[in-house]
This record gives sequence, C-alpha cells and structure tokens, in this order.
Amino acid sequence: MSGRSGRARLRVVIVGAGFGGLEAARALARAPCEVTLVDRTNHHLFQPLLYQVATAALAPNDIAWPVRSIFRGRRNVTVLMAEVAGVDTAARRVRTVEGPAIPYDALVLATGATHSYFGHEEWAEAAPGLKTIDDATDIRRRLLLAFERAEIAADEEARRRLLTFAVIGGGPTGVELAGAMAELARHALAEEFRHVDPRRARVVLIEAGPRLLPTFPEELSEEARRSLERKGVQVLTGTRVTGCDPAGVRCGEERIPASTVVWAAGVTASPAGDWIGAERDRAGRILVGPDLSVPGHPEIFAIGDLAAVRDAEGRPVPGNAPAAKQMGRHVGRLLAARAAGRPAPPPFAYRHQGDLATIGRRSAVVAIGRFRLRGLLGWWFWGIAHIWYLIGFRSRVIVSFEWLWSYLTLQRGARLITGAPPSVPAAAGRREARTADRARA
Amino acid sequence: MSGRSGRARLRVVIVGAGFGGLEAARALARAPCEVTLVDRTNHHLFQPLLYQVATAALAPNDIAWPVRSIFRGRRNVTVLMAEVAGVDTAARRVRTVEGPAIPYDALVLATGATHSYFGHEEWAEAAPGLKTIDDATDIRRRLLLAFERAEIAADEEARRRLLTFAVIGGGPTGVELAGAMAELARHALAEEFRHVDPRRARVVLIEAGPRLLPTFPEELSEEARRSLERKGVQVLTGTRVTGCDPAGVRCGEERIPASTVVWAAGVTASPAGDWIGAERDRAGRILVGPDLSVPGHPEIFAIGDLAAVRDAEGRPVPGNAPAAKQMGRHVGRLLAARAAGRPAPPPFAYRHQGDLATIGRRSAVVAIGRFRLRGLLGWWFWGIAHIWYLIGFRSRVIVSFEWLWSYLTLQRGARLITGAPPSVPAAAGRREARTADRARA
Repeated sequence: MSGRSGRARLRVVIVGAGFGGLEAARALARAPCEVTLVDRTNHHLFQPLLYQVATAALAPNDIAWPVRSIFRGRRNVTVLMAEVAGVDTAARRVRTVEGPAIPYDALVLATGATHSYFGHEEWAEAAPGLKTIDDATDIRRRLLLAFERAEIAADEEARRRLLTFAVIGGGPTGVELAGAMAELARHALAEEFRHVDPRRARVVLIEAGPRLLPTFPEELSEEARRSLERKGVQVLTGTRVTGCDPAGVRCGEERIPASTVVWAAGVTASPAGDWIGAERDRAGRILVGPDLSVPGHPEIFAIGDLAAVRDAEGRPVPGNAPAAKQMGRHVGRLLAARAAGRPAPPPFAYRHQGDLATIGRRSAVVAIGRFRLRGLLGWWFWGIAHIWYLIGFRSRVIVSFEWLWSYLTLQRGARLITGAPPSVPAAAGRREARTADRARA
Repeated sequence: MSGRSGRARLRVVIVGAGFGGLEAARALARAPCEVTLVDRTNHHLFQPLLYQVATAALAPNDIAWPVRSIFRGRRNVTVLMAEVAGVDTAARRVRTVEGPAIPYDALVLATGATHSYFGHEEWAEAAPGLKTIDDATDIRRRLLLAFERAEIAADEEARRRLLTFAVIGGGPTGVELAGAMAELARHALAEEFRHVDPRRARVVLIEAGPRLLPTFPEELSEEARRSLERKGVQVLTGTRVTGCDPAGVRCGEERIPASTVVWAAGVTASPAGDWIGAERDRAGRILVGPDLSVPGHPEIFAIGDLAAVRDAEGRPVPGNAPAAKQMGRHVGRLLAARAAGRPAPPPFAYRHQGDLATIGRRSAVVAIGRFRLRGLLGWWFWGIAHIWYLIGFRSRVIVSFEWLWSYLTLQRGARLITGAPPSVPAAAGRREARTADRARA
C-alpha cells in the first residue's frame, strides 16, 4: 500500500453501489485515493434482469453480488454497509443512520432513483414497484400466490380477479414484465393446476402514452406490441391509471379487477439532492455541470439516475445502466487525475449505445444506431449481451444454464413463495373442496 | 384418467409435503385414488442442506421445488397450498384456514416437527431455529449483518460480541452449521473487510450431553469434535444453556456475549396430534400402530417426525429423511393396496441406512452398518449422496457447480442480505469512521 506517503491521499466517498457508483470506485481502485463505498444493502444488483427474479426465472443471487467481494483485492477501497442520513457539506462529512460520520475530500452521489406514483403514494401498497431484490421477491410471491389462491377460490368471479395481472407502464421494465408473466402462466404453470387453467390468466399492460417503449424507435414499439399480443398480453396504450387498490386498477370509468398489480410507470430521483440542497429538475434529479459536479461544490458529483445531464444535441441522457456507468467512469477518472495532480479530463459526453428490450422467449427488440434486430435474432443478441455484463464466472455459468434449461423445458427455476406468511384470501368462502366432487364423480 | 369408473375412488388427503408426505403421494400416483396433497408452503424442501442456505453457500431455490411441479404429470394428485386448521374425524374432513374443507377416506398426517425450546419460548427471538427457507434466510441475514456491523462498530467490545456466533445443540444440524460458519469467516469473508478480521470470529458449539452427534457411533463423535476444533470452532460439551437473549447465551454462571445465536437443540412434533386427539409421547409424537395408523382410526396415519415408531429391536426410529421416506412409502403402498382391494402389506419395519454429517470442506463422518468413512473420503461420499437425492436434473447440475466453484475458489455464491430492513445496531455510537484516520495517516 502506498497510503503512508508524505502527501495526504484524497478521500473519496461514493454513496450507492449501483452501476454508477461501482464504476466510479473501479476507476479509482488504482489511484492514490482512499475510497469508501457506502451502500445500504450488501450487494450490487444487476437491475436489467430483476424482472426475471420477479417472474421466477432467476434466483436473487444470480444477479446480485456482495459489493465487498467485488473489491476484495482493491486495498484502497473500503466498503461500508450503512444508510446515509445526510451530508454536512461545510464540514465535508457524510452522516449515517448507523453512527459513523465519514469525512471526504470528494463526494460522489450515486443513489439512483425510486418509484414515483406522481403524488399517489397510497397506490404503493396495491401496486409495488421493482427496484430491489426484496421488491422482486415480493412481486414473485404475489404472482405465484395468486395462482395458488385461484386453485382454492370459492367462485368464478374471485378466480377471474385472482388470475388478472396488471402492469402499469410501457417502458422496457413494463414490457419485459408483462411478457414474462404471460409466459409464466402459459408455459411454466400450464399443466400443474387441477381446478383452474393458468393459460386463461389475463395480463394487461397499461401505458398512458400513445406507444410502448417511448424512448425506442417507433417501428420497434409496434414490433413489441405485436409480440406481446401474440403471447396473449392485452396492451392498452393511451390509457391513464386513475386509481390502484387491492381490488384492482381504475382507468377513468373503466375498472380492471386484478389481484396483482405492478408499478413500472415512473421513477423519481432519490432524495440525495436534499442532503446537499442542490437545484433539481421536476424528476428530482440534480442539475450538474459539464464535469458532473454540483454547481458551487466542485468536490461533489452526482451521477446516474440521480443526475440531470444532456447529451451533445441537448437531449436528456436516459436513466439506464450504460449511462450510469459512463458517468461513473468519467467521475472516477476525473478524481484519479485530481488525486495524482494531473489535468482534468474533458467534460462528460454521453455516447448512446442503443436500446434493447426482450418480450420473453424468442423475442426481443434491439436498436443500435441504424442497426435493428428483432424476434429470435434480437433475443439471442439480448441474452448474450446480458450474460456478458454479469459479474464473475459463476453468475455467467449459472444464468446461462438456467436460461438454457428454461428454453428447453419451459420450466422456471425459482418458483418459491417466501417472505411474509401467506394471509388468508378474503374472497375464499368456506366450502367443500372441488376435489371431493371430482373424486366422487 | 380412470376417475370415471363406476366404483368410487379412495380419497386420500396427505397433509405436509416433506419427505414423508411426498413419498406417500408418489407411491399413490398410479393407484386408483384421488390424492390431495396439502402444504402451507408451495415447495418441498430438502432440509438436509438447509444449513448451506443459512451460511450463504446455496440459494433457496437450489434445494426447494414447487410441489405442484413434482406432480405435474400425475393427474390423480391435486396439490393445494393451504394451512390446516383442524380435522373433523367424525365427518372425515380436513379444515383449512383458507376456507375449503377437504373430505377424505384416508388421511396421512406428515406435518413434521418444529423447534422446541423446552418451555422457554422466549428464547426463540434471540436464538432462531432452522426448519424453513425463511428461517434460513433469516439466519443468513443475522450472520452476514454481524460482520457488516462489526466493520462499523464503535469499540472493541461491540466488535467482539458481533463476531461471536453460538450454535446450541450438537446434533448433525448443529455440527454442520458450526463448521460452515467457521469456514465462512475463515475463507469466504477473510480478505474483504478493512476494519475487522473475520478470521478472528469465534464460533461456539454448545451441547448439553457428553458428546457431539449423540446418535452416531462414539468414535465419529470424537472425529467430529477434532475436525471442528481444527476449523477453529470451540466445542463445549456437557454444557447446558440456561438463557438466550439479544446479548448472548448464558450457561449457568458463564455468559457468552454473542450477536448471533442459532438453536439446533431440540425438536417437538407439530400439533397435528391435537387435531385428532391422539395419544402422544413426551416429544409430542403420535403413538402409532404397527401399520403406522392411529389407534382407533384405521383410516388415519401419522408418518415421519410426527410419528413415534420403534424398530425391530425396540429402539426409537430417528427423525431423519430416510425414516420419513420409508414410512411414506409404507403408507402409500398400504393405501394403494386398500384402494385396489388387495391385501395389506406387512407391518412397517425400519431399515437404518446409516448416519452422515459433514463438518465443512473436506471433512465428513459416515457410518453405514460397520462401514466407516471420515475426512476427505467421507466428504466426497456425503456430497455425492446428497446430490443423488436432490430432485431433478437442474438442481443436481446447479448444486454440483456451486460446490465445485466454492471448492476451487473458497467463495460462497449466495451472500445476500435480504428481508427485513437492517435496523440500527444499538452498540454503534456516533463517531468518526476509522477510514478517515487511516486515510490521513
């Protein structure tokens, strides 16, 4: 270790171990800095595949890795599992809920985004979002329990409600979730129930705007819709949700009775902007300068979904993993240069790598510049790209195997109902199990 | 389906999808019966490897399978996820919390056992037991959080308490847990912390009796103790626990301050005996007749950990997976014969297959009749035997790969802290993170 040199080493604190924070820490791992990476969980999560955990295709540990394992050999990186309570910008300290205050010379905020219910926080209970591992296992439990309860439900109306699944929001997450839900019902569960037919499950994808995947080229939106409809998903575009409760979703006059509703409609930046009193846009993102630093604070940076950045043409940089990684790398290199006394790199410039979304088995849409892929070819491209970006040999092998196995058998490897004990479904009245009638027939 | 024959088919209800219940249902899958298999979870759990989930080596879905997948192709088996509330023996119905009452002609109770705190239920909060997937992820969270909190702890005393782990009970589960915990600290976590050295973690295994693995041949108890001590586990035999609370364990005058305590000391049968008003032994197990039926109820059977059975020499049949499977198969065949109008098979006779326990990497003890294996050879035998008994090709491949990968890298594949949000450790006072001191040194 070179920590004992005469000159004080730059203390960099990075808050958040998502794509942005991780990449910043990596870029600093050989620089003359002491890096402290703080996250409130113990793992880095590969969010683009989280919908596969929610739909029982992958296990949580296939797409999440302990942050400290990633930095095991980087002795200048300290990983702390702690929740940040605030930042004392004058004293240059990060305060944590757990106790320790962490002093910094440079601070990188990479706390990402969370669900936004557009002022209707009361919808959250009935329509959970998908951001964390616990969110995913919660949605998986709701989804699988709905089929279990339908199997013992007392009447046809209850069964119909239990077997209706609504996904709100037609961006990549919503499209991927809806496709995966339809396939779960139509393939993995199809032969396993005796009193209900999972193939009759209804999956509804609700989008307020005029088309799915609004940030993708228009032709791919059409392709995604067709592909979803072939899988049996009902796509409602131009439909605004006006209410969510345990009975289902309301869209103006229309009511969709649904037992399971997932919110994939909106995100808002995490409250890190509050900690430092920074100026923010309407989505709560911190308005940063060309080097991603916070105006008035050359020692504080905001990156990833937390930062409002525009590309060379003035268009907003999207809130996705490649953008977060590019920003993390930029700030990491900038701070490495600063620590070494080298001149700063040129301002951040976003490079769009493309758009991908999968719509389940054998179907995906890919747009990279003018290059387009769809259907089976797009799906292969999507799969290989995602395995490439996983961390470590172990996850690549396991996810490849799980996908191959699912592809060949149509089964899912992680169909566990875990967590909160299943409560009693209100709709199921006391009655004879229909098993009995069948048996005596 | 042959369900539409003139003669009414025998309705068999099996409660519990553990080793016993599953085997009974399998034995009935081609018989002229309508089988209903009821479990309060949606999965069959391979309990012998549950300690590997608790110590982050395997993921929950590696050792748990949806019950209904197992019976996908057996059209006469209906799987219901429901919690049994009681049995109406006069009307021959199983009542469920969810509503449906399930009529039966024959009832198989296979509800297993749960932890017993010997009248000290108040210890359960501080010293959870290991029976379900949720138990395992709870213990995994406590274990991994203890290291995380030690890394940010304010003082040496708090750190020492956080890095002390106590396992109560020296049977196979306790021995396997203690060995796996010691290896987690010594290998998987060793290089990843900056403020504490996980290798200094103290693992204490506490057994009230004079030796570990009391049901195993005595020489293997000695071998297990030596092997655990080589791994750094402190083995306390002849030590009775007199208290468990969040601060640690009390053994008479001695206090062991420990953040994480696991209870592997005693089990008691589940309350199914209450449902039918059956006579039970001190451990709550139902006293059954030679054909495993409940005296006075030739149509009700109790199997597995729920049943008090003796072998040909009058010794109690142990509460393990092979015994439960043998009983399940016996009752399944008996009922298949009854349904087909064939004579009943001879009374149940337990065949002891042997004792195995592993003490972590490269060490296990095996006793099959006069045959003995220990050390590396025992460990290979143990591993192959367990993979053999897993369900399905997928799990065998994944568990084999996970074990090979752990063996080669000393890493663990499932080190996730999930579930309840981490609460604030009481011991950690507000202070400067030591990172700062190091950085400025």
